[in-house]
Amino acid sequence: MTTAHAEPATPVDLAAIRTRVDDALEHFLRDKATTTEPALPGELTDTVLDFLSAGGKRIRPLLCVLGWHAAGGGMPVPQSIVRAAASLELFHAAVLIHDDIIDNSRTRRDHPTVHRALADRYRDRREPDRFGAHAAIVLGDLTMVWSAELLHTAQLTATQLTEALTVLDGMRADVMYGQYLDLITTARPSRDLGRALQIIRYKTASYTCERPLQLGAVLAGAHRGVREALTAYASPVGEAFQLQDDLLGVYGDPARTGKSDLEDLRDGKHTALVALALEHATPAQSARLLGLLGNPELDHRQADTCREILTATARPRVEAMIRTRWAQANRALDDAPIPAAVSQALRYIADVVVSRNT
Amino acid sequence: MTTAHAEPATPVDLAAIRTRVDDALEHFLRDKATTTEPALPGELTDTVLDFLSAGGKRIRPLLCVLGWHAAGGGMPVPQSIVRAAASLELFHAAVLIHDDIIDNSRTRRDHPTVHRALADRYRDRREPDRFGAHAAIVLGDLTMVWSAELLHTAQLTATQLTEALTVLDGMRADVMYGQYLDLITTARPSRDLGRALQIIRYKTASYTCERPLQLGAVLAGAHRGVREALTAYASPVGEAFQLQDDLLGVYGDPARTGKSDLEDLRDGKHTALVALALEHATPAQSARLLGLLGNPELDHRQADTCREILTATARPRVEAMIRTRWAQANRALDDAPIPAAVSQALRYIADVVVSRNT
Repeated sequence: MTTAHAEPATPVDLAAIRTRVDDALEHFLRDKATTTEPALPGELTDTVLDFLSAGGKRIRPLLCVLGWHAAGGGMPVPQSIVRAAASLELFHAAVLIHDDIIDNSRTRRDHPTVHRALADRYRDRREPDRFGAHAAIVLGDLTMVWSAELLHTAQLTATQLTEALTVLDGMRADVMYGQYLDLITTARPSRDLGRALQIIRYKTASYTCERPLQLGAVLAGAHRGVREALTAYASPVGEAFQLQDDLLGVYGDPARTGKSDLEDLRDGKHTALVALALEHATPAQSARLLGLLGNPELDHRQADTCREILTATARPRVEAMIRTRWAQANRALDDAPIPAAVSQALRYIADVVVSRNT
Repeated sequence: MTTAHAEPATPVDLAAIRTRVDDALEHFLRDKATTTEPALPGELTDTVLDFLSAGGKRIRPLLCVLGWHAAGGGMPVPQSIVRAAASLELFHAAVLIHDDIIDNSRTRRDHPTVHRALADRYRDRREPDRFGAHAAIVLGDLTMVWSAELLHTAQLTATQLTEALTVLDGMRADVMYGQYLDLITTARPSRDLGRALQIIRYKTASYTCERPLQLGAVLAGAHRGVREALTAYASPVGEAFQLQDDLLGVYGDPARTGKSDLEDLRDGKHTALVALALEHATPAQSARLLGLLGNPELDHRQADTCREILTATARPRVEAMIRTRWAQANRALDDAPIPAAVSQALRYIADVVVSRNT
């Protein structure tokens, strides 16, 4: 397992894809700002552009393009495929805009969240914070609508479009199922590892990895063998991604992750880490943990107590789960009927997922 | 202008369409509830079904089917067209779920709003009202995602689907533009009639009337003349619909409209009624009105004062605007290249729009 993240020298130039995706997003949104009649308030597109330019790994668009190559889609990547890939990022922006309202997050990627940015812009309103949240509900909806339009106007063939919509209908529903399950289990810590893994499958394994790869694959007319191989890779990688995310939420360096290391503990997120801790804790540890998780006033000293218990009971188990899934994903690539350059890029992504600290 | 709403005896059986649309919605949602793996919390589909069954005019699906007939689409209406029409109602449910959070509405159609229903279901949470709002953000998103899937799986031909998506991309964006403009002008009463009419065009004329008719028309392969005639009818009817809605928000009988007659005044909604009132009021009336509109504590006596001023300065003007638009819509039908039975149904809808009290 490597921790060096220099991008690999493969024919698949991930940085170039990212640049083309970002250009497609900027072009689409700038076009909306200038061509819509009657003119829209400038903050609609500006706020979404600011949000996108604050960073993000673009993992879904990258996986989409890798799925395209996996199924034999050639170089250079057609602009229609780049636009379809970019539409995933715009959909994700919509999900995050709403998620930040729900989590009451003040910053993401070290920038103000969208509801904060809108509250600041309308600071003279009677209740600017409520106003910002409400405006961000609408702007999140609009971003979701725009993401669909970006796909529909990507100049795909009729067959590509039909296949793409089937994959996307599943992807969009899965992330919402995951978000909802996440919400109703939050502040209800339990030993239910199965439920935690179900949330991971909907919210991340499907949404972040499997469906983006499948989208690219069907756009290239993938046959069944390729699609099955991609799923065999994507499911464990996606689970590893979220398990690592859960560890970063508790143990990450806020200066690197760009978010508070108290939030998940204060919210009492139901994660595999917490489920395993409650399963393996002594009665005293368990009681202590349950008394602290989900306390919105949790301070740094109490957070350290949580971390000590989680480390003693569950962290090594979660790390082992991540390693197992990393190995599984790599094994799935060994015999996958996809070009070597694509396997190499997918192995690189699996490495990044398990060793990232941001 | 008639006030009798007995449905007209035309070959276009509006009640039968409504029933088929409702059946399609129920079938789609019940199928989601039973076939999704792993199983979803039952309240996801139940809450949306409850919301839909509480009522609603189904005006968008009806107009979609009338657009289909207008462009020569025959009887019986194919199930694919019914499903496409039904997807408009599901999209509208998503819009209303989020709108009710924003407006902090407790009831709609005499039933608890979705965020209230979810808050009640999770009454044991630390902050059930916040929880209900957050769960309703996600459920609204999911409903929007489902509405797209209902369309995509309607078994349209590739050409129908492509044409439909173009109309729908415009429709979905327009309602969000309108919602956003509505939000930023609320509690900022002004004489800006142009802005009030812009909101009406985006939020209602396009979203509620023109695009649903155009959707049905393109599904039947409408030529340009039919599409232009439908727009010439739909724009004024849609404007009249919203102007009437604004009147009902202030003068309506809460027992019939199912919503408070204080809300619009307390919010200080920027409507044509208010813009015209401020334009034509004496300085004293204007000062009085500006002092009352947008006051969240406005009581019934103060609301009556608002109504008196609005009646003296603007209500007859708005009623005249509605009549003008009603006449315009009817004139547009005189020479429209569409079957007589469809014109008759569209005239009936225009009559209902201008004379409804619910």
